[in-house]
Amino acid sequence: MSFAQIDALCRRLEALDHAQAMLGVDEAVNMPEGGGEKRAEAMSVLASMSHEMASAPHIADWIDKAQSEDLDDAQQAAVREFKRTYTNLTCLSSEFVARQVNARIRCEQLWRQLRPKGDWKDFLPSFENIVSLAREEAQRRADVLKLDPYDAMIEQYDPGSRQSEIARVFADLKGFLKAFIPQALDAQAQRRARRPLKTFRAVFPIERQKALGQALMQAIGFDFSHGRLDVSHHPFCGGVPSDVRMTTRYRTDEFLSSLMGILHETGHGLYEQNLPRDLGHWPSAKARGMATHESQSLFQEMQLSRRPEFWAFALPLARKHLGAEHFEGFEMEDMLAHVHRVERGLIRVDADEATYPLHVILRFELEQELISGRLAPKDVPEMWDARMRDYLDLSTIDNPKDGPMQDVHWPSGAFGYFPSYTLGAMMAAQQWAAVERAVADAGIQISRGDFTAINDWRRRNIWSKASTLSTPDLMRQATGEPLSAKYFEAHLRARYLNG
Amino acid sequence: MSFAQIDALCRRLEALDHAQAMLGVDEAVNMPEGGGEKRAEAMSVLASMSHEMASAPHIADWIDKAQSEDLDDAQQAAVREFKRTYTNLTCLSSEFVARQVNARIRCEQLWRQLRPKGDWKDFLPSFENIVSLAREEAQRRADVLKLDPYDAMIEQYDPGSRQSEIARVFADLKGFLKAFIPQALDAQAQRRARRPLKTFRAVFPIERQKALGQALMQAIGFDFSHGRLDVSHHPFCGGVPSDVRMTTRYRTDEFLSSLMGILHETGHGLYEQNLPRDLGHWPSAKARGMATHESQSLFQEMQLSRRPEFWAFALPLARKHLGAEHFEGFEMEDMLAHVHRVERGLIRVDADEATYPLHVILRFELEQELISGRLAPKDVPEMWDARMRDYLDLSTIDNPKDGPMQDVHWPSGAFGYFPSYTLGAMMAAQQWAAVERAVADAGIQISRGDFTAINDWRRRNIWSKASTLSTPDLMRQATGEPLSAKYFEAHLRARYLNG
Repeated sequence: MSFAQIDALCRRLEALDHAQAMLGVDEAVNMPEGGGEKRAEAMSVLASMSHEMASAPHIADWIDKAQSEDLDDAQQAAVREFKRTYTNLTCLSSEFVARQVNARIRCEQLWRQLRPKGDWKDFLPSFENIVSLAREEAQRRADVLKLDPYDAMIEQYDPGSRQSEIARVFADLKGFLKAFIPQALDAQAQRRARRPLKTFRAVFPIERQKALGQALMQAIGFDFSHGRLDVSHHPFCGGVPSDVRMTTRYRTDEFLSSLMGILHETGHGLYEQNLPRDLGHWPSAKARGMATHESQSLFQEMQLSRRPEFWAFALPLARKHLGAEHFEGFEMEDMLAHVHRVERGLIRVDADEATYPLHVILRFELEQELISGRLAPKDVPEMWDARMRDYLDLSTIDNPKDGPMQDVHWPSGAFGYFPSYTLGAMMAAQQWAAVERAVADAGIQISRGDFTAINDWRRRNIWSKASTLSTPDLMRQATGEPLSAKYFEAHLRARYLNG
Repeated sequence: MSFAQIDALCRRLEALDHAQAMLGVDEAVNMPEGGGEKRAEAMSVLASMSHEMASAPHIADWIDKAQSEDLDDAQQAAVREFKRTYTNLTCLSSEFVARQVNARIRCEQLWRQLRPKGDWKDFLPSFENIVSLAREEAQRRADVLKLDPYDAMIEQYDPGSRQSEIARVFADLKGFLKAFIPQALDAQAQRRARRPLKTFRAVFPIERQKALGQALMQAIGFDFSHGRLDVSHHPFCGGVPSDVRMTTRYRTDEFLSSLMGILHETGHGLYEQNLPRDLGHWPSAKARGMATHESQSLFQEMQLSRRPEFWAFALPLARKHLGAEHFEGFEMEDMLAHVHRVERGLIRVDADEATYPLHVILRFELEQELISGRLAPKDVPEMWDARMRDYLDLSTIDNPKDGPMQDVHWPSGAFGYFPSYTLGAMMAAQQWAAVERAVADAGIQISRGDFTAINDWRRRNIWSKASTLSTPDLMRQATGEPLSAKYFEAHLRARYLNG
């Protein structure tokens, strides 16, 4: 039976994925420096073995045959998603992939070297090569998938999302934000005039911060028998659904950056831990792409953990773990002033939830034009500057380091990935609105540290669906309507204009 | 070229080994309990993939062809050792292996359940099955390898060692120890009568014990850019040569059991870290079997780290890291009384270096007879008791839990493994004698914490040889003579009879 053959293959691929995921975690968390070379070699060999096994030509026959076998619904969904991943995996020739991997490694290395200097000129030839290969890739994917080239790129990160739909919600959001941000800044200034921002003046020991983070993770529903919290230079949520490895990074002069990072990663972690276990080796039981994953971390961080109700529950815990003496004179309003800050800035990864989408929309617009060929790589710095001035009133024309050279995505060949961040933010707001309709006193429950009903809704509508639906269908079924910017906009208005 | 094909295969096998080694370390050191089921599944799939790849029938042709290709000495050694491992790996049919794995898992599970109760009667049928399969395995291996059946079993753990040779040195050692142990106990009693054993009465914080362990590891030559020290329930030395993961386990009421364990594992770690790197994916560049590995840990622990000279260097470090106040009134003699204790006991893993070999010799004698069929499994408890009374003046007749049921080796089907422990102890003593001839003031160097010349000797004569020689040839080349019991006996006399 072909289904059984695919099933057995999926178990083998799962074992290789498991090994790669855990070797990656170990590398970031534990590995001594000298182990790096052999680790890289081992991981690269495992990746090729996995790719070879997953892309073997005879698999196409197995899929054809499995589709006409007598399968239950879960098995049919499994075959559908397996076919989708197989098609995406095999639509590029190995000759092309080798050429592209080579160019990406070179461009990324060059980027690491030239970014600190902001040397766009020396970076440009390599970047032109990357863009040219990305256009070729998009066309090859488009031919196989029968999609527009940029849509074919998005399909890797966010299955089912299309640029026409993204452009529609992004246009709405962009119009809103250009007017909203000055208002939010104004409201913030008025609040601060009335009540100046209180800063912490203390040393917060790492062990205490960790205990606070773990206490909040536990309360939120993270299962420590299937996961743990460690330290790494770049925080991430890795591992496998049965063993989720989250990391953070601590500073001792303040605790909020690490804590909010932990809460963000906990959203990713809950998603992974609550995927269906029984068919866990099937692609249909895996998380549904980048946008949906980001919707879960942003739901946890932005929708839940930056609410006043959350701090009604979390502030006493912070006092308990970090020492009440450091919070003397701190009211709820003072905490919220820290977690609700709006500021225009050049750097995407440092941006707050209100300005962040404009960074993403800028990149979305530029990469569509790069892939279509309407924009030449050499013209990126000027175009970037023009839009930054338009959207955030900031110029990058003399500062490519903090302009188009700031992200690793393009040098590493990832075009079509950026929209996921802001799609995730909008999905999270729309999911929260649906939760509020379904769970009458959701806010009160949060203030008591009770996430049971909220997690039940998420489990039923998002986590358990895994990859059985496209992203747009998942959102429609969960919230009763297609993705819209209006919930995210209402969320921003409610949070930042209460000046 | 066939050599190139084998070379490429070895790189793939190395990547799978790397993954399995690191997943094993992570499981023991970091993994939350709930991750166990999927981890076991992933590791079992990786093990089958590795076995399939390493035992594919077409490899036999590659080996034949590679042997007539124009290869340098290192490549020829690589092909020789690759052929040896291939032959050992493929001499059992997969039907037999499946039958045996099944029986081993059952017998091991039954052993875990019945050992605490000492229920030999219910254990016996499963054990009889294991012995019968081991005899079949030995015969199948013997047919392919053209060796005596028990020798064919030893060949898996200690290539080139033969029972006739082992029996010769063990007979010598047994005769010596039966007379020596009463003398050593007597000398110890006299020493204690003159100077009672001083015990530590303190709490030793784990962080301080760890710092002391790391300081000694560093001084001895462990490379922390290619390894680290963690905590696990059962201490081990794992990982890969480029990234050696050692573990220990701490108690806070005393520090010596953990510290001596660390020093033992450091011996394993140094061997791994100093294997030749350039052909690291070849079997010929891997460590030479269990006996040689144990010779390295016992060299470090018994030959170096229980010497008075070592404590001349280590005691000040212990005072510094653990607090000088806990060592008030402790002279060198008091430290040595702790690290030179002799005591008769029932349990192998708790035995000291003087009584340990008798535990091993007993098992060696019994398993030879089990494999040849001269001893029936049902008669093991009586035979065990008779020899324990003869060798250590202790009876186990009413106590199978602490008699033949104490070790996991036989229930898990490992016959031919036990001799390695004592072969390693004798090899270590013989290696130390060779070091003393080659490095005139080796003892003084140790007392200064200088292990450079000693490690150079080990690197040149043991570590760099990896698996290019059989165990007996390795010993002969390193020490100028075949393995003999006399150095180990002289070592015991010098250490324990100075009463």
